[in-house]
Amino acid sequence: MKLNKDKKILIVGLGLIGGSYAMALTKKGYRVGAITRSESSIEYALSMGLIDYGTTEIDKDIIGEADLIIFCLYPNVFYEWIKNNQQYFKPGAVITDVTGIKVNIVYKIQEILRPDVEFIPSHPMAGREVYGVKNADDRIFKGANFIVTPTSKNTPDAIELCRNLGEELGFYRISELTPEKHDDMIGFLSQLTHCIAITLMTCNNVEHLQDYTGDSFRDLTRIARINEDMWTELFLLNRDQLLKHISQFEVELDKLKIALNQNDEETIKDIMRKSTERRALFDKKEN
Amino acid sequence: MKLNKDKKILIVGLGLIGGSYAMALTKKGYRVGAITRSESSIEYALSMGLIDYGTTEIDKDIIGEADLIIFCLYPNVFYEWIKNNQQYFKPGAVITDVTGIKVNIVYKIQEILRPDVEFIPSHPMAGREVYGVKNADDRIFKGANFIVTPTSKNTPDAIELCRNLGEELGFYRISELTPEKHDDMIGFLSQLTHCIAITLMTCNNVEHLQDYTGDSFRDLTRIARINEDMWTELFLLNRDQLLKHISQFEVELDKLKIALNQNDEETIKDIMRKSTERRALFDKKEN
Repeated sequence: MKLNKDKKILIVGLGLIGGSYAMALTKKGYRVGAITRSESSIEYALSMGLIDYGTTEIDKDIIGEADLIIFCLYPNVFYEWIKNNQQYFKPGAVITDVTGIKVNIVYKIQEILRPDVEFIPSHPMAGREVYGVKNADDRIFKGANFIVTPTSKNTPDAIELCRNLGEELGFYRISELTPEKHDDMIGFLSQLTHCIAITLMTCNNVEHLQDYTGDSFRDLTRIARINEDMWTELFLLNRDQLLKHISQFEVELDKLKIALNQNDEETIKDIMRKSTERRALFDKKEN
Repeated sequence: MKLNKDKKILIVGLGLIGGSYAMALTKKGYRVGAITRSESSIEYALSMGLIDYGTTEIDKDIIGEADLIIFCLYPNVFYEWIKNNQQYFKPGAVITDVTGIKVNIVYKIQEILRPDVEFIPSHPMAGREVYGVKNADDRIFKGANFIVTPTSKNTPDAIELCRNLGEELGFYRISELTPEKHDDMIGFLSQLTHCIAITLMTCNNVEHLQDYTGDSFRDLTRIARINEDMWTELFLLNRDQLLKHISQFEVELDKLKIALNQNDEETIKDIMRKSTERRALFDKKEN
């Protein structure tokens, strides 16, 4: 299957990411439908022209007509949805997702999925600290990364379709990783950083912070406004990787602590030089 | 002494912060001179109209004419400068600084300072990840915090003068803290955050980070490009406070680690709720 304007796209779960997908694809001229729990989300999306049609029901016709279904649900809800409703899929349909962890969801779903439907997993590395379709904004994809995480069950066609989806959505870089490598990477880049931000925000009960802070504390705690249901689920589904990264971070932080304790200027400077060098490289490659 | 356009202001140390001070004050109509080590910094500042006059020498006349002298030097260099050159100060002159730590510099300088000159310490909470007068930019003070840290040796007049300086520079909030309280606050808000950023940047040697990262990792490591000489000096001069804050952070991070280990959803969610609540408050007060 190739992505083209004749294909019917269905989004299941119309929150911030689902809504932003709908916005981007509708602007590109695709016909986009939606199934979501809340009536007001459907009404809003219709009134803003984000979708063509939508329902809060498990509508067999809508599901059965869709060529590409994009699941924008929490991992466990996603799995339950597939288990309960996959009989309505159109033969040959392709499904993808936006789930932030892969190993613990991808194999489980590919395992139970009908053989005539293909699940090609992907992860859009974009988000905001606000929720719901009313905050949908396709500009969040600009300059952002889109990761396709195929397994041995995936076909080159579906991988290509999913890469095209990332491009059509407006992502800057499309990459491929195994689910394992993805979860390791995300455990470090995204989950560890959220753990650090919430720890920083909760470890000190000082008052009137805002009178004394510079930009650094604001930067490091931007993501400390966090959706506790979603992130707890994501953390626990990637627990071992995350714990590994927290420990690795602590080992490194302890090196700095020991150097401080011993007034070991040279070690502190070495760590800083390494940090500066790596961050500079990172900045450069960003452009 | 009151701050007015007849007063001669001298900046010692024309780097990013000294240069930005010069820019802001010159725009406001003050006559600003500079003493700094590098001839090219003086030439640049003169050619850009940031200063009225400047030299790389310890010029007795320039020092002796200055009513307000602002030291924008590393802490130890600042102390040496005062020790070696304070005989040239004008009687009744006021001096201030921009040093990022206070306890270990303020009392030492007030101790050796001539009794007819007053040192009123302050800390502009602003900066960039680039250095030197060529990157001077007075917009960094917009919306930022300026902290005056008087001791029992300071007079109400000098405190007022220093507050006025913060206002004239364009800072958003002017606050007062004791040197002790300042160093505690800065150990947490600024030094701990820099420790975290450099640790995050150095704890994992993964390649091609830039292909997979979202905004969170970029935000948390912006300050990982760090001037190792300056920050090592600042860390070591505030070592005990910083070590306390690192330990406090680690204790809190370990709570999260234990909760993850035990699949303790409720504790994880509690931490996240507390984090969200505190960060939301922080955002609100920022506006």
